[in-house]
Amino acid sequence: MRATSLLAPTLREAPAEAEIISHQLLVRAGFIRRVAAGVYNYLPLTMRVLKKIEQIIREEMDAAGGQELLMPIIQPAELWQDSGRWNVYGPELFRLKDRHDRDFALGPTHEEIITSLVKGEVSSYKQLPLLLYQIQNKYRDERRPRFGLLRGREFIMKDLYSFDRDQEGLDVSYMKMYHAYTKIFKRCGLTFRPVEADSGAIGGSDTHEFMVLADSGEAAVLFCGNEDCEYAANVEKAAQVFKNEKEKEELKPLSVKETPNMRTVEQVSTFLNIKPQKIIKTILYENEHGVVAALVRGDREVNEIKLLNALGCLRLDLAGENTVKKATGAAVGFAGPVGLKGIKIIADLEVAALVNAVAGANKGDAHIINVNPGRDFTIDLLTDIRMVQAGEPCPSCGSELKEARGIEVGQVFKLGDKYSKILGATYSDENGTSKTIIMGCYGIGVTRTMAAAVEQNHDQDGIIWPASIAPFHTVIIPVNTRDSSQVDLAEEIYGRLWSGGVETVLDDRAERAGVKFKDADLIGYPLRITIGSKAVAEKQVEVRVRKTGEMYLVPLDQVESVVRELLGKL
Amino acid sequence: MRATSLLAPTLREAPAEAEIISHQLLVRAGFIRRVAAGVYNYLPLTMRVLKKIEQIIREEMDAAGGQELLMPIIQPAELWQDSGRWNVYGPELFRLKDRHDRDFALGPTHEEIITSLVKGEVSSYKQLPLLLYQIQNKYRDERRPRFGLLRGREFIMKDLYSFDRDQEGLDVSYMKMYHAYTKIFKRCGLTFRPVEADSGAIGGSDTHEFMVLADSGEAAVLFCGNEDCEYAANVEKAAQVFKNEKEKEELKPLSVKETPNMRTVEQVSTFLNIKPQKIIKTILYENEHGVVAALVRGDREVNEIKLLNALGCLRLDLAGENTVKKATGAAVGFAGPVGLKGIKIIADLEVAALVNAVAGANKGDAHIINVNPGRDFTIDLLTDIRMVQAGEPCPSCGSELKEARGIEVGQVFKLGDKYSKILGATYSDENGTSKTIIMGCYGIGVTRTMAAAVEQNHDQDGIIWPASIAPFHTVIIPVNTRDSSQVDLAEEIYGRLWSGGVETVLDDRAERAGVKFKDADLIGYPLRITIGSKAVAEKQVEVRVRKTGEMYLVPLDQVESVVRELLGKL
Repeated sequence: MRATSLLAPTLREAPAEAEIISHQLLVRAGFIRRVAAGVYNYLPLTMRVLKKIEQIIREEMDAAGGQELLMPIIQPAELWQDSGRWNVYGPELFRLKDRHDRDFALGPTHEEIITSLVKGEVSSYKQLPLLLYQIQNKYRDERRPRFGLLRGREFIMKDLYSFDRDQEGLDVSYMKMYHAYTKIFKRCGLTFRPVEADSGAIGGSDTHEFMVLADSGEAAVLFCGNEDCEYAANVEKAAQVFKNEKEKEELKPLSVKETPNMRTVEQVSTFLNIKPQKIIKTILYENEHGVVAALVRGDREVNEIKLLNALGCLRLDLAGENTVKKATGAAVGFAGPVGLKGIKIIADLEVAALVNAVAGANKGDAHIINVNPGRDFTIDLLTDIRMVQAGEPCPSCGSELKEARGIEVGQVFKLGDKYSKILGATYSDENGTSKTIIMGCYGIGVTRTMAAAVEQNHDQDGIIWPASIAPFHTVIIPVNTRDSSQVDLAEEIYGRLWSGGVETVLDDRAERAGVKFKDADLIGYPLRITIGSKAVAEKQVEVRVRKTGEMYLVPLDQVESVVRELLGKL
Repeated sequence: MRATSLLAPTLREAPAEAEIISHQLLVRAGFIRRVAAGVYNYLPLTMRVLKKIEQIIREEMDAAGGQELLMPIIQPAELWQDSGRWNVYGPELFRLKDRHDRDFALGPTHEEIITSLVKGEVSSYKQLPLLLYQIQNKYRDERRPRFGLLRGREFIMKDLYSFDRDQEGLDVSYMKMYHAYTKIFKRCGLTFRPVEADSGAIGGSDTHEFMVLADSGEAAVLFCGNEDCEYAANVEKAAQVFKNEKEKEELKPLSVKETPNMRTVEQVSTFLNIKPQKIIKTILYENEHGVVAALVRGDREVNEIKLLNALGCLRLDLAGENTVKKATGAAVGFAGPVGLKGIKIIADLEVAALVNAVAGANKGDAHIINVNPGRDFTIDLLTDIRMVQAGEPCPSCGSELKEARGIEVGQVFKLGDKYSKILGATYSDENGTSKTIIMGCYGIGVTRTMAAAVEQNHDQDGIIWPASIAPFHTVIIPVNTRDSSQVDLAEEIYGRLWSGGVETVLDDRAERAGVKFKDADLIGYPLRITIGSKAVAEKQVEVRVRKTGEMYLVPLDQVESVVRELLGKL
């Protein structure tokens, strides 16, 4: 490709709306242009990246036995009504009516459509397992679309659905996908971790998220510091290692202390001169059943996902000031479990092990000391409801956990019979007995993976594409386009590289070399070949590695082999 | 691919709604399944066909200098309001609102978006010409979606837009696309014709439609019977060859004849014993300006597209009974140009050449004879407004025109400055003068091409895919899957063909051979390899060509070369 016929308009400044680096760089380097909030034009450079990612995905899906199909983007409401999601999905679902006033949705996901398809076409155990996937635009009407390709309203996803006879079959399909995903992100040249994630309140099924590690990642990941241990989990999922060791202290009598205006753990611990871990933090929540009190140790944070799952409720919100006042008789900051009436108390495991702890007195400006669970209040539900932190032991091997930040680019999920049961997708087994098909779903955000690659691979000058998903492998820059000997040499190498399968851009624009160098760094070609007067005279060109800045002086007849060798390492 | 792991569910019966053969066969052979009216699931076999068509398109677009990008499906209303099409487009445009109540459309086409993109990114003549294309779902809310993939509401299109400095540049881009399209449909193995088509009332720009010839085609095409002449036109566009030869007859005086209940040309011509070509057929239309009378010879039909263009109006409808009565004073069937007041008369060229003709008397049950244009009434506009028929002379070479039916699968169109002017897409020329960019647009219906291929290539047993777009090249059928020697031989050939690049399905289902043969014919694999006990014993297999029914007995060691040779011809 010649730069003069490539639409890759670079910009010096990123648009004000671009808050994160991938958004800024993808706009500045001429990969994307905004059409509406969360809706983008993908320019030619983006297409090349997306096609490479898609090709890697296709190869691994096919290798794992997947069959590609394509389902509609406009989905009739009836199927969503049958599954019950038409009403549940809320404003994130783009909805429209056709000319005959029939309701449709723009698909954010395709469980309904594919389950309905399989219901119609699969009748026998002989047709299972079945792995069906598509790569396609998806739609989600985000309240606040931002972050460029990381959180758009229109984005490209690969979604595969597995159909099995039973749970064991699902386990096999799940692991196939798990391994395929591992290969995909490895082949994309990304540093990532599959992490255990929460599967939501309904069902206790397995799910893993595939996280591309990047400091800017929106999610916290905990992983085992022991290299031989594979444990890694989303911070919302990570389980605490609880050793049930009660402090050996004599129980002392309850007593109320004045704590004027001392509301936070820090204030109370300083004021009373006790460690935060001696404090019982009491936080009130509201769900569809009423108000609950969640207790964790003062040095811990409530994990609301764990809490939600433990309570088995559908929603969970922090209780407002008025609710707290009504429930405890005191302002926010002074709630405690002692004497709390008509409110369910759910406590973290560690709380039950406390002796002579401090808690709010349910009275303004007061705390109670020498609180002892069991003696002074009853725990209705005792379980793990707290956040785990880096430094705690790994639940798998006991080594120390470390923390990283990640961007979720893929998820594998065991659906079980959630959709097949409700939509009636069954098969006959060997004995002619009708059974419900067991499903899994497996997504990869294709445009998201591209953005995550940029978040992980960039420097102050621009993007640093992994070679396997770079829009082009190499750019050739003739320093002076008015010097025909430089241009001729550039053309010759350009022709040789292309015919050798190295995707190359010849920057034939009549621009200063400095401008071209800047653009090359910004766009992020893995290699840059500079052809100046010295190259012509000494018959060797300068090859520069974008990632490391290493420079090589390469004799003309070795350019192809050196380029290929360098690319093999990037 | 093994048939046991391929989702290609064949059916004996087509659904009742399937009116045409491609719809019936694509459903029966397991290529598509309906989700809603005009909305389909594309099953794995379809994906393979579509990818091949898309790949051919991509290669030819790229070879012609096209750059692939991808624009959004959801398009903000503002751009459509700017271009004026938001209100004009009517109910065919799917519209929706986002959660913030902003209007969007599902793109039926992308002139607005791409013109806006180019406006923002192109400023200099140095950036032109520019050819940008995408392959993507398009949306059109048809009043009556039917015909399967031929007229869906969601369908796949390739659309390319060209941007040039001037008309000469556009001519070059247009011919590039014209030639690329010719290559594409040739490579798809289709019999087709590029035909001149009508470009609509606004502007007199060139346009060609690419028609796949098929008896079931919805459009009539006229083409020159002389093989050395390339003339071909959509029947709406075909120009008449008019020789201005007035009959040498003396003008006779007007006279009214009773023609009780004689309304049609046929009735009047029989009743008055005159040839139809002596009758002036008068048809009243209404447009936004009022009522017009269109005159053609009795043996001709009005071409409403030509009429609309000649009148330069936006809409044209046949006048209703009441309008006819009010305008002519008589019932439908007795209108004529003589004495018609306050109505514009537009006549076909041939009408002016008539002498002593017959016309309606604008009075019930009466016609006038010896009507002479010029003497008895005034023609306000004389031009070609009639349909041309097979048998008439070719406008290019004078040979006889022939007629065929075709399915439009592509169109190339000179837009000129229609969108660039209204949306302000300009560039600076060498002198710094700002000029409007000149555009063209070029579409190919990808799913439509697939359906058209089936319309053109099928027999009573099923589809006959051209090899270049067939989902697979070959199917191997072991006659008895319980005979391990047959199965082993089938497996061996299967492995050899795949590793030799021949896309092969091994029909390993535990079905009777007859069922497999029927499915193979229905799905339309170009070649079928049958492996029975004789094949094992005599070390030769039967290779059958789907298209011709030819059978070859091929020694085992020659299977690959024979298959490849046969495919090369299909």
